[in-house]
Amino acid sequence: MLYFETKFPVRYYETDKMGIVHHSNYIRYFEVARIEFMKDIGFPIEECERQGIELPIVSVECKYKFSAVVGDVVTVNVMLDKTPGAKMVMKQQVLNQKGQICAEGTVVSGFINKKKGNVVRCPEIFANLIEKRLNDR
Amino acid sequence: MLYFETKFPVRYYETDKMGIVHHSNYIRYFEVARIEFMKDIGFPIEECERQGIELPIVSVECKYKFSAVVGDVVTVNVMLDKTPGAKMVMKQQVLNQKGQICAEGTVVSGFINKKKGNVVRCPEIFANLIEKRLNDR
Amino acid sequence: MLYFETKFPVRYYETDKMGIVHHSNYIRYFEVARIEFMKDIGFPIEECERQGIELPIVSVECKYKFSAVVGDVVTVNVMLDKTPGAKMVMKQQVLNQKGQICAEGTVVSGFINKKKGNVVRCPEIFANLIEKRLNDR
Amino acid sequence: MLYFETKFPVRYYETDKMGIVHHSNYIRYFEVARIEFMKDIGFPIEECERQGIELPIVSVECKYKFSAVVGDVVTVNVMLDKTPGAKMVMKQQVLNQKGQICAEGTVVSGFINKKKGNVVRCPEIFANLIEKRLNDR
Repeated sequence: MLYFETKFPVRYYETDKMGIVHHSNYIRYFEVARIEFMKDIGFPIEECERQGIELPIVSVECKYKFSAVVGDVVTVNVMLDKTPGAKMVMKQQVLNQKGQICAEGTVVSGFINKKKGNVVRCPEIFANLIEKRLNDR
Repeated sequence: MLYFETKFPVRYYETDKMGIVHHSNYIRYFEVARIEFMKDIGFPIEECERQGIELPIVSVECKYKFSAVVGDVVTVNVMLDKTPGAKMVMKQQVLNQKGQICAEGTVVSGFINKKKGNVVRCPEIFANLIEKRLNDR
Repeated sequence: MLYFETKFPVRYYETDKMGIVHHSNYIRYFEVARIEFMKDIGFPIEECERQGIELPIVSVECKYKFSAVVGDVVTVNVMLDKTPGAKMVMKQQVLNQKGQICAEGTVVSGFINKKKGNVVRCPEIFANLIEKRLNDR
Repeated sequence: MLYFETKFPVRYYETDKMGIVHHSNYIRYFEVARIEFMKDIGFPIEECERQGIELPIVSVECKYKFSAVVGDVVTVNVMLDKTPGAKMVMKQQVLNQKGQICAEGTVVSGFINKKKGNVVRCPEIFANLIEKRLNDR
């Protein structure tokens, strides 16, 4: 399994009048981790898009377990089981500084050729970088 | 089945550099429709919270089918099959002005007593209003 | 003076843990009104951008006077004193349903040719539509 | 002068269809830096609010100079010239990793007693911590 994580403080504006991080923001936290993961593996999203490939989200599933609040520093992870083909399936979690799981779910993204607008497979360079990392562990 | 819908234009800031509405915003659109639904049925969220009950989200599932863009006026609906008990299960969709489904999914919310912090059942007044509407159709 | 206004309910996710609409969201409300204004006058932003002209924001000033809350239906207006040249200066306000001014300020936008990346003047078609409306009053 | 800065990557969802960080998000970046500043100085916002004092924003001014984009790591600073009394006046900037100023402005916050709802002066503990830091330099 490929594992990546990043860490950042909860932002004040991300809370709502219940005093907790709004549920839509965990979906955004997931994205932050995915973008940092792509940077970390050596294929940043902006490079990917420069090569004409965009990564639209196909589906999101998220279970909310514990509320993150202002003052928390959350850890957001990305887990991949296999090299992406037509789709990239990522398990993701948001944990607080005590290790409590705040939210966890699965995000599936596809790949499209921006100019032609058609669905493509995961760019080879990205697939190779992921495969290498999968084998390293 | 109880059906409610509301309509509003896509906001510019809701798009991202792909030029489409960011996937997290459909989750927010779902909420807009739920809040308008509660107002419409006669039990607005602010009244609910004044009575000490909050509606935290338990889970969200969303499939993305077609991109909403600036210029679109989206219709967002909420569908309930039965009167909520411990949880409220809502099917929801976002459609554009051509009737294309942009996103659809299921949102589950719970009910908590804000002061005590414990899980409760759907407030009777809300359950009754929903039941009445379910029977009307 | 050219006057335009639009109306919409406060969204739940726009509040923060103080229980009020987060101050950054009034800046977004201003934009919602500007985009609706462009649609209303007959030169929607997506048409403007299709013609290769983007409207980057040059500066924003906002004074916060009264908190908007969930349950409020806000009116957001746009006021222009003169036909835009190199810049477009807009006075804007957010009012609640009781007519209380929640926020007011000034937003200045410029015009750029997207492809060339250089600053241009207000597209003639847009300037003419504004001038006509200014004279109508 | 008291100077504080924090650093973080631009988030993908913060961009809009122009491909740049949406102007409202610099206002949010400013807040991120203010919240980190309060943590750093030893009086985190959540502690402040626990003591019954909230910091509503009174006004915001922001000039946009250069667009931040995905891939950028921005530095956001907070500068105070003097110990806050009834209001806290902060000069703030957002710079990219090349040192280019993306946005700069002034944010003024007040202090209110949450329970009573009335305006108060800057909490003494916070004023003292700021004064100490002002004198250190």
